[in-house]
Amino acid sequence: MDARDELLVLGAGVIGLSCAWRAAQAGWRVTVLDPAPASGASWVAGGMLAPVTEAWPGEEELLALGVESVRRWPGFAAELGQAAGRSPGLRTDGTVVAATGPGDRAELDALAAHLALLGRAVQRLGGRELRRLEPALGPDVRGGLSVPDDLAVDNRALLAALRAACDRAGVAVRTRAAAEVVDDGSRVVRVRCADGPPVAARSVLVAAGARSSALHPALRGLVRPVKGEILRLAVRPGALPPPRRTVRALVDGRPVYAVPRDGGGLVVGATQAENGFDTTVTVAGVRDLLRDAERVLPGIAEYALVESAAGLRPGSPDNLPLVGATGPEGLFVATGHHRNGILLAPVTADAVAALLGGEDVPEPVRAADPARFVLARR
Amino acid sequence: MDARDELLVLGAGVIGLSCAWRAAQAGWRVTVLDPAPASGASWVAGGMLAPVTEAWPGEEELLALGVESVRRWPGFAAELGQAAGRSPGLRTDGTVVAATGPGDRAELDALAAHLALLGRAVQRLGGRELRRLEPALGPDVRGGLSVPDDLAVDNRALLAALRAACDRAGVAVRTRAAAEVVDDGSRVVRVRCADGPPVAARSVLVAAGARSSALHPALRGLVRPVKGEILRLAVRPGALPPPRRTVRALVDGRPVYAVPRDGGGLVVGATQAENGFDTTVTVAGVRDLLRDAERVLPGIAEYALVESAAGLRPGSPDNLPLVGATGPEGLFVATGHHRNGILLAPVTADAVAALLGGEDVPEPVRAADPARFVLARR
Repeated sequence: MDARDELLVLGAGVIGLSCAWRAAQAGWRVTVLDPAPASGASWVAGGMLAPVTEAWPGEEELLALGVESVRRWPGFAAELGQAAGRSPGLRTDGTVVAATGPGDRAELDALAAHLALLGRAVQRLGGRELRRLEPALGPDVRGGLSVPDDLAVDNRALLAALRAACDRAGVAVRTRAAAEVVDDGSRVVRVRCADGPPVAARSVLVAAGARSSALHPALRGLVRPVKGEILRLAVRPGALPPPRRTVRALVDGRPVYAVPRDGGGLVVGATQAENGFDTTVTVAGVRDLLRDAERVLPGIAEYALVESAAGLRPGSPDNLPLVGATGPEGLFVATGHHRNGILLAPVTADAVAALLGGEDVPEPVRAADPARFVLARR
Repeated sequence: MDARDELLVLGAGVIGLSCAWRAAQAGWRVTVLDPAPASGASWVAGGMLAPVTEAWPGEEELLALGVESVRRWPGFAAELGQAAGRSPGLRTDGTVVAATGPGDRAELDALAAHLALLGRAVQRLGGRELRRLEPALGPDVRGGLSVPDDLAVDNRALLAALRAACDRAGVAVRTRAAAEVVDDGSRVVRVRCADGPPVAARSVLVAAGARSSALHPALRGLVRPVKGEILRLAVRPGALPPPRRTVRALVDGRPVYAVPRDGGGLVVGATQAENGFDTTVTVAGVRDLLRDAERVLPGIAEYALVESAAGLRPGSPDNLPLVGATGPEGLFVATGHHRNGILLAPVTADAVAALLGGEDVPEPVRAADPARFVLARR
């Protein structure tokens, strides 16, 4: 192999590692740089794979992208599990969405109608029917939806599997702090680092999440940090068992979710705030999450509060990710996935592998081409 | 020195270390055994030195003991700071007690009347007057008390100072797990350990907090674990400053406290539950503490939630500690301090030094003589 088959990936989160693994499978010699591999938003995340229950009117391209990626998830997980020799923790029990107040119920009805228009029918259920599916739901739940195709994954098991698969595929993950992708005016030549000598490179994939914008002028202003606080609970002896499905809910208009883990864990999230690169867990954030989650799942009062943490989602101007080539020759990006990085990892990694091979990306990824902002700027 | 001047202390919490330091000052050769020094209830604690605002009718002996110990605190802290070469973190800004609902106000009025009868007058203040003292108090506070003589200490700074002072005084702290004090029918001969060979000893002080009862038959049933959950907050830029005084409050009948630390920290506690040796932090515990503390100090919503933890207070049958000689010759105890271990450390350590020297204990410590239970058993 010559230098043209070497790829430098900046960022060892779920997106960076997924792309690195796929690129290595395609024959690239891949090195990943990250000052703290697998520790950012991917580590903090809830792990919902839930494009349908995440759908907002006006974001049809994101829905199509998410639906395509969740379709790829079971195959991706099976192949990854084989390659890694360990399970990435996919759960296929589906998702329910619960409404508490009458306004919440109306909002879910509107979401169901919107999805029906798009040809994605979901099942509407009353409170009693929902509780029959998930007895952990409390009496304040008035009704909601069942969405069996919205899945979930244990994000930390996924990270461990991706690292193992990368390792077996010959990907080198280096604990290095990339500071800037340097080009010679026409193509990428190296990556300057904050903690030592630069790394020569002709092909670089920026997958640094919320910190991507600083890495090349072509990305300036396109990715911003969106803080999210999240709690990890664990069932205790004598407490009610956790739900089997992912539970999303609206509580007096506030969204909250609870994603079960194997072994009695439950991940409760997530707040949303734009406050720069601050990752402090606040009293208000924890209070809101606990209050709203208890309204929906009262049995968690007796659970252990094991961890509280905050991560920075990489927000883009239009909530679609940035996946494609941009700026100088040899610069690729896979970032701006906002709340959907884990969901979109399979389709993003497949798209990056296609791009590197000079092929077309999967159809729904075309809307994520960073060129949309380059054109807008001109 | 011969073996008679050797003392083995079981437990390296605030009580064990304070007694070890005082004993070393009195000429004893002291070894402290603890499987995890300075990590138990003393580490988790809030650090209130608040006998007056803790006073309950019917517990006059405990109040007298606490008042005597808080009187000793400034001298103890000064001497300890000198000996350790570092500050033990005493704060002398005093305490306010806040009432929210009308029932809470009535309860504080009853406490004030009770204290007046005992000759310990406290100042009763309306809501506006209290807020003038502590602007961090929110509008739900209807009134309360000011108690300037109830102090506070940074329990972790205290532990660090005690360890340094012990070290300088020649006390050896060993990471060992004592399992049982063994006697020959008339006097102590050794301590059996769970993690290695026994340690010969003719004088043993049991200061193992909630785990004391298992260490000798004479203590059986006298000390039980009383779990307490507690949160550590920190002010953030732009948030309202924390109170200067310790704030205790009743919120719809539930007690809550917030103890400020130098540097913008605030310790919020504490739940109370009897559930064996469980130290899980629960959703319900955190939710209650945050809700009640925010009612009193609304500005903490924007604070960082830095830590949540649970400790085991050593409860005694009558809420008075056990300080004195008991069982076979050479066995001393300093345990059962329940919510008051840090408050009572100075007077307990002075009492233990007196006992070891064959002198009388300070007058208010006589009520803590473990003989009261030996007599009751016969």
